[in-house]
Amino acid sequence: MVVELISVGTELLLGNIVNTNANYLSQKCAELGYSLYYQITVGDNDGRVCEVLKSALERSDIIILTGGLGPTQDDMTKEAVAKVFGKDLVMDEPSRKRIEEYFQFRFKGNPLNNAVTQNNWKQALKIDGCIVLDNDNGTAPGYIVEENGKAAILLPGPPSEMIPMFETHIIPYLQKKQNKVFISSMVKICGIGESKAETDILDLIEQQTNPTIAPYAKSGEVHFRVTAAADHEEEGRNLIAPVVEELYRRFGDNIYSTEESETLESVVVKLLQEHNLTVATAESCTGGLLTGRLVNVPGVSGLLKEGFITYSNEAKMKYLGVKEETLKNYGAVSEQTAREMAVGVAAASGSNTALAITGIAGPEGGTPEKPVGLVYIGCLVNGETTVREYRLKGNRAKVRELSVIFALDLLRRRLLLL
Amino acid sequence: MVVELISVGTELLLGNIVNTNANYLSQKCAELGYSLYYQITVGDNDGRVCEVLKSALERSDIIILTGGLGPTQDDMTKEAVAKVFGKDLVMDEPSRKRIEEYFQFRFKGNPLNNAVTQNNWKQALKIDGCIVLDNDNGTAPGYIVEENGKAAILLPGPPSEMIPMFETHIIPYLQKKQNKVFISSMVKICGIGESKAETDILDLIEQQTNPTIAPYAKSGEVHFRVTAAADHEEEGRNLIAPVVEELYRRFGDNIYSTEESETLESVVVKLLQEHNLTVATAESCTGGLLTGRLVNVPGVSGLLKEGFITYSNEAKMKYLGVKEETLKNYGAVSEQTAREMAVGVAAASGSNTALAITGIAGPEGGTPEKPVGLVYIGCLVNGETTVREYRLKGNRAKVRELSVIFALDLLRRRLLLL
Repeated sequence: MVVELISVGTELLLGNIVNTNANYLSQKCAELGYSLYYQITVGDNDGRVCEVLKSALERSDIIILTGGLGPTQDDMTKEAVAKVFGKDLVMDEPSRKRIEEYFQFRFKGNPLNNAVTQNNWKQALKIDGCIVLDNDNGTAPGYIVEENGKAAILLPGPPSEMIPMFETHIIPYLQKKQNKVFISSMVKICGIGESKAETDILDLIEQQTNPTIAPYAKSGEVHFRVTAAADHEEEGRNLIAPVVEELYRRFGDNIYSTEESETLESVVVKLLQEHNLTVATAESCTGGLLTGRLVNVPGVSGLLKEGFITYSNEAKMKYLGVKEETLKNYGAVSEQTAREMAVGVAAASGSNTALAITGIAGPEGGTPEKPVGLVYIGCLVNGETTVREYRLKGNRAKVRELSVIFALDLLRRRLLLL
Repeated sequence: MVVELISVGTELLLGNIVNTNANYLSQKCAELGYSLYYQITVGDNDGRVCEVLKSALERSDIIILTGGLGPTQDDMTKEAVAKVFGKDLVMDEPSRKRIEEYFQFRFKGNPLNNAVTQNNWKQALKIDGCIVLDNDNGTAPGYIVEENGKAAILLPGPPSEMIPMFETHIIPYLQKKQNKVFISSMVKICGIGESKAETDILDLIEQQTNPTIAPYAKSGEVHFRVTAAADHEEEGRNLIAPVVEELYRRFGDNIYSTEESETLESVVVKLLQEHNLTVATAESCTGGLLTGRLVNVPGVSGLLKEGFITYSNEAKMKYLGVKEETLKNYGAVSEQTAREMAVGVAAASGSNTALAITGIAGPEGGTPEKPVGLVYIGCLVNGETTVREYRLKGNRAKVRELSVIFALDLLRRRLLLL
């Protein structure tokens, strides 16, 4: 079965946004065992959407279209698909109701936006005979149109709406169409660079047939997806198990998860829960990003005691008890300050674990001795504090992002020793 | 003049990498005043590259192909282009020399790689009669093939090679072909929904010829790009000025910037700096994301006093002085608590402005009276506190993201009144 992607949106043609949807959908199609030979991007133009859809239907079985489902005049993906399939647009009563409720709820008491404008009702029209997919994160529903063994899947453009809809509705739909099941495991590694990790398993990658091993580089992490094609789930699991075991033999504790759904922060929260521990944070250059990552995990409220963003020296002294002489003798970005921040935030909050970050994110503030990218991370677990020095490469955003990842990873490694 | 992009690479179809080349090239083409109606991605497959190139030549004037110029058997973009243009491949003596020198230099003293392998010489072949573009960052040269008023531009796939080659050779080439300059302004709006914003200027959008007005929806924001084609820069600026003025007349303070480079947080920091104010934050459900956004802005350290992530009731009382009876009578997610958090964090930090967020991000924790998505934002400026209630739709990440945007926007609006 061959899938083809059509991304609709003039903002893509103007380069205003990067097409991450095509990347996400291509990955998912590969995982589900579908072939994909073409990705097409066109603007919000009726004639051109019809043209590329017609070519796509000639050479591919399932066409996934993203974008152009919004309420504005520009949005015409649904209209174009209806035209190519020779179908009418008809009012979908459940969609109409959903839109009404969405606006009543969202703008209650908000004087800026208190009415559903006329063009919002356009989103309540469906292609006659299609499957309507609810959108829990926006107003544009998705659609599946089937005809003569071909299918068009219409999804909203914003990734925050498209991805949940794809995972809830489209993955099961695509799985049902395949005879093989594809079982995969995502081996997630933190603490080893991409090329080193790949070199370490080059022999496995070169020998691969079924299961396959595909590397995905992520900022500060390396993921290997191990995928097996099988007749049923158990066979698939049996095929991937020895490969995952071999990866554990080679990478050990650098592997933090083999679950698609787990993140570095969710693994840290799980370990904290298992050991009945609480956590507190003190952030300087990362300015809340570390705590923000922890708060990604639903249910973290039970164990996150407090977070302090102590950007200034005064705040470091006042709330964390960092000594004035430490700041004077060693500077705010130093092993000593990171240590006192970690100890101080644990004491102030009464938490039994703590993370503290202090560093120079740039672009200003670097010196020959303390260059941009120098970061100290303090990690306290049950009274014992470790401080690590990092010299990170990249711009301000990159240095901050990597600092957060390495802080989470440092706490994870300490918790594994308990 | 119409440009079309063809990205060649199986790794794009498998979702192993994001197609940032298409984004970069689209932006540049728009800036240079070229229209772009199609972006195509195909794998390293001779037949399919020929097929999409033929369609592209029928509907576009200049085809930019990236990728598939490397030394391996897979790489066949040059061969496919030669075939479609009916040209031979011939040895290019300067390219042959360059490759020889590159390998001598790069692998000097490296025992692993001290010979040019046979397939590297493939990169010294050029399409007969084409322009050869030197590659200063790799071994694959680029090419321009011209025939019957059409042109194909072949560039290497790695952005670190493609971008310098594009900037050195292709921008001058494309500029020479165009007579017009294109000037644009990005009008950025917060506090109005996309469809409402568009309805408000439907007449302008419908009348548009030059300048054009194009809407871009972003999470919680709406952007309109106003672009004029002109004979010179000043004429372009004169053409867009009245349109931007008209947008200001209609949207007023909802417009926070007309600069491509400005963000909501950078505008807030600029306003704080202009009024010599400091800021402090108290976050519950957003857990550091608001402060993290502020810290995006280089130089914020001078005015960001402190940030508190007070997830627990104890922390709200201990650090922010929220009263126990307030929490008992109204709950942690209430107008009263948001107000006391804002007042408390300003007092604790000695800051003259403050933002406080408390809400229910979900997925758990909602009740019929206080559903998931209910958020209160407190904003203090020079002793005066405003609290706004929001009822946001979406998953945990979306509720948190929108809360941060609305908090920044609330502070922005208060600062505009000073």
